[in-house]
Amino acid sequence: MPALITNYSSQPEYSSYELRQKIRRGEIKGSTSGLARTMQANLIVLPSRYAKDFRNLCLRNPVPCPLLEYTSRGDYTSRLALDSDLRTDIPAYNVFKDGKLLRRKADIMDEWTDDHVGFLIGCSYSFETALKEAGLEPMCSKKNMAVPMYVTNIPLNSAGVFSGYYVVSMRSYKQCDIPRVREITGQYIKQHGEPIAWGWDGAEKIGVKRKIEMGLVDFGDFVDIPDDEVPVFWGCGVTPQVAVQESRLKGLVMSHLPGSMFVTDLDPDDESFLL
Amino acid sequence: MPALITNYSSQPEYSSYELRQKIRRGEIKGSTSGLARTMQANLIVLPSRYAKDFRNLCLRNPVPCPLLEYTSRGDYTSRLALDSDLRTDIPAYNVFKDGKLLRRKADIMDEWTDDHVGFLIGCSYSFETALKEAGLEPMCSKKNMAVPMYVTNIPLNSAGVFSGYYVVSMRSYKQCDIPRVREITGQYIKQHGEPIAWGWDGAEKIGVKRKIEMGLVDFGDFVDIPDDEVPVFWGCGVTPQVAVQESRLKGLVMSHLPGSMFVTDLDPDDESFLL
Repeated sequence: MPALITNYSSQPEYSSYELRQKIRRGEIKGSTSGLARTMQANLIVLPSRYAKDFRNLCLRNPVPCPLLEYTSRGDYTSRLALDSDLRTDIPAYNVFKDGKLLRRKADIMDEWTDDHVGFLIGCSYSFETALKEAGLEPMCSKKNMAVPMYVTNIPLNSAGVFSGYYVVSMRSYKQCDIPRVREITGQYIKQHGEPIAWGWDGAEKIGVKRKIEMGLVDFGDFVDIPDDEVPVFWGCGVTPQVAVQESRLKGLVMSHLPGSMFVTDLDPDDESFLL
Repeated sequence: MPALITNYSSQPEYSSYELRQKIRRGEIKGSTSGLARTMQANLIVLPSRYAKDFRNLCLRNPVPCPLLEYTSRGDYTSRLALDSDLRTDIPAYNVFKDGKLLRRKADIMDEWTDDHVGFLIGCSYSFETALKEAGLEPMCSKKNMAVPMYVTNIPLNSAGVFSGYYVVSMRSYKQCDIPRVREITGQYIKQHGEPIAWGWDGAEKIGVKRKIEMGLVDFGDFVDIPDDEVPVFWGCGVTPQVAVQESRLKGLVMSHLPGSMFVTDLDPDDESFLL
């Protein structure tokens, strides 16, 4: 049994178990940022014939796609969360058919078949508590918004049928705080670890500077960058959703809606229960 | 004790042990491509204060930097090769000081101190036997030349003091052979695995097309591409040497000369003894 966090000193008000129950009943919608102190995770659900290639995609791209767990064929429970159901315990889902986004849904009871395999991938929301405790809480977390996410020009290491580009999450910091931000988040190896780029030069290098200047996002919510701060970018577990589309994957694929995560029972500071 | 390969049905003429002895005595110089059927490896030797960051660099970039082994502080033997000495058992070495290439040497007896740590990283020479057996021997192997290597525009996932760009090795194939080449090399997870790019479009995307058209290489030997073939690119274990320079790493760093590898005793088809 993984380490279950049940006692919070202050916020957030729910245990991870209670939070999943409320999400399952449809009482919580939108971003899960800050709603739990436990490890959060990205979900991608694939026909079993793609499972081997997808596992290799994760092994070859551990920064955007750190693999936390995968289920048996047809199994929709996660061993990282008590009494969980991956079909209902996320606020909103994306459904893709033949590589195209088909619709958004509140659950995927009708879509998940005996042939589907669920993959959980680390999420940068997991280290936001540590940043907060260091006095470095990102603006999106303060405002309870989804983190801004961008598709970059950095190619994934392809694996079988899968290819694509890194997706990154963005938080802004003062230049002088970046060494501490790198050090703190670098401890979370299976939750994207340290940033992959920072500063306006970094934004230009990975091909997202213009989008930020125009106030755009590819996923999540746009969050303004104060004049004395610069953008900092982490690998993001939305990467597989873009890979599914880039790779024009045949069949029915499901995922979480970017920003609305699966909340596990694990302590983000203890990665020893993970793959 | 790892699986030791001692019987070859035909070429090459030496066992891996004999080959290391001959290299140690200075009787073999230049590329080790095709000289052994055992797993070959890239070497990087760092002051111990960089070991943790470098290990993270490998974990965050397993395609160009698949970590096979690292030694204890000051230890210059490899557990992957009987009676080995990492200071002498490679045909030629590069020595870097403060991030700049200082000189090329036949051994690094004088440079290796009690504070140095040796890292061995997988090498694509390891899967050339499998390609040969499938009738897909690359030209550089046929000609006993070092494989052509290029610095690309793909950024590494930085780790502590380390940042840089992917280095790739290049072999050319007919377009129709690429699916088989991908499948065969994809089995060698810890030896760079499947290609990361292919075709002239691929070459342009990773920023090396013009260099190839001009007949240039960054490391290794230039090998002509026949009109009916296209370039195919794999991650390359020379990547850390470029990262050492890009990161302007302080102190004395040593490596193999690109193309002249450390020859282990391991069967390339059995990765179970590796990290």
